[in-house]
Amino acid sequence: MLVNRDCNILIVGLGLIGGSYAKGLKKLGFNVSALARRSETIDYAVKHDIIDEGSADIDPEMIGKADIVVFALYPHVFKEWISKYQQFFKSGAIITDVTGVKSCVVYDIQEMLRDDVEFIAAHPMAGKEVYGVENADETIFYGANYIIVPTDRNTAEAIEICREIALLLQFGRISQLSPEEHDEMIGFVSQLTHCIAITLMNCSDNENLVDYVGDSFRDLTRIARINENMWSELFLLNKGSLLNEMDRFLEEFKSLRDELAMEDTEGMKEKMRISTQRRALFDKPKKKV
Amino acid sequence: MLVNRDCNILIVGLGLIGGSYAKGLKKLGFNVSALARRSETIDYAVKHDIIDEGSADIDPEMIGKADIVVFALYPHVFKEWISKYQQFFKSGAIITDVTGVKSCVVYDIQEMLRDDVEFIAAHPMAGKEVYGVENADETIFYGANYIIVPTDRNTAEAIEICREIALLLQFGRISQLSPEEHDEMIGFVSQLTHCIAITLMNCSDNENLVDYVGDSFRDLTRIARINENMWSELFLLNKGSLLNEMDRFLEEFKSLRDELAMEDTEGMKEKMRISTQRRALFDKPKKKV
Repeated sequence: MLVNRDCNILIVGLGLIGGSYAKGLKKLGFNVSALARRSETIDYAVKHDIIDEGSADIDPEMIGKADIVVFALYPHVFKEWISKYQQFFKSGAIITDVTGVKSCVVYDIQEMLRDDVEFIAAHPMAGKEVYGVENADETIFYGANYIIVPTDRNTAEAIEICREIALLLQFGRISQLSPEEHDEMIGFVSQLTHCIAITLMNCSDNENLVDYVGDSFRDLTRIARINENMWSELFLLNKGSLLNEMDRFLEEFKSLRDELAMEDTEGMKEKMRISTQRRALFDKPKKKV
Repeated sequence: MLVNRDCNILIVGLGLIGGSYAKGLKKLGFNVSALARRSETIDYAVKHDIIDEGSADIDPEMIGKADIVVFALYPHVFKEWISKYQQFFKSGAIITDVTGVKSCVVYDIQEMLRDDVEFIAAHPMAGKEVYGVENADETIFYGANYIIVPTDRNTAEAIEICREIALLLQFGRISQLSPEEHDEMIGFVSQLTHCIAITLMNCSDNENLVDYVGDSFRDLTRIARINENMWSELFLLNKGSLLNEMDRFLEEFKSLRDELAMEDTEGMKEKMRISTQRRALFDKPKKKV
């Protein structure tokens, strides 16, 4: 392993995901420090054994000790942070992230970053409809998907370090996509699904819905509890891909609608057979990577 | 209680839902018999203590003993059954069902039914993406919603019997809706969500999706594994309501799409705030009825 227990790991941004990384890595015996905006966050994380130490101020010494730095910030805050404070990184440090969009982040950060520090992008496909370090929970990563998003500038060593972090945190499938492939994929599997959940809840103001829904409606709207600041930023930063996915969905949905209107039973059944076949692939046992 | 342990209960149709009713009621000590199309189904159910006895043929004696009969058939099969075999019902028997659409079933059945037998419609809002008596599982009802769908023809006593069955099976919230209200509600909370799940899986033929999805996509497509014969029938029987709900959804979805296209961040955030508020109502502790 390239990542060993002597590594100092710094988490920048202690929300749900940053906190869960910290908690999981500290349990494994790593020395985990963190930077957060609010000192209450740091106090909570130290008190609950989520981190070893942390600071609500930029702490050049803490940054300079870190071998691996994980950024769990909003995309625009991440870029600002790098441009302002990258001089404090240790030479040879590996930087990674958990950002939900990539094309608009990865190239800019790699472009502005010092030559003796490497940024390898990653996207853990895990989350929860709650926020903050108080909900940090490393078990959300167990068996989840993890996407590494390298560019031509990345070294095999940095990619391997990224993969090892995912293995340590017990992610299931670990894949690699280019930033463009990632954003198209995420526009479909993550952002489009959030758009659907939001829309479903906007379709009805019936306050008694809870008395009538089954698991299907509950499942389809779980993610309708959403952080509007983060997600509106993610949507806008992936506008092109997301619009494509929304339009493709609209077209397919209208096709089903028209089949129903025309009582084209065979057409509807064919779509149901396709959806059944494709969805069945998800329930196979997970392959270990 | 109007429903007591001396009651003979007959289940007609031993699929997932019929089988789960049978299993739950038999565990409570009722004498449960069943009619199914295939003798293998009956054999399995007897062998696994899901029913006391059953038949793959129409058994006038078994039907004539039943105080309560639960129909768990496709809508058109249910209607045919009543028209052909209702002469075998015991006088005073209470008939109920689990059918997913109501307007097109309830009035017709009540119209054709003998005067000394009462049909009270009900819809258990529970299910699973698997089928057959082999998957019968009474725990799917625990805490789930149950909708009683009476008409002017129903007696208070029959409604109470229906409610007691729901309580015995440990459903959570028990509500009453008219057939028309039920079909509009179900068009929204159940049929529309199935249309969305089907559409999502039809949007992409990427066989590697499973490597990239998070819980959001998995949750939104769980119900994309669907019995195309049953659901195409349910969609067509509720065509008017479902088309209304699909069109409302299309309009709301397009509105979000256009906000993204125009970078109307405030508009998107407002929809997210509404969806968050409304969805939060679902996560309150269940009220016991």
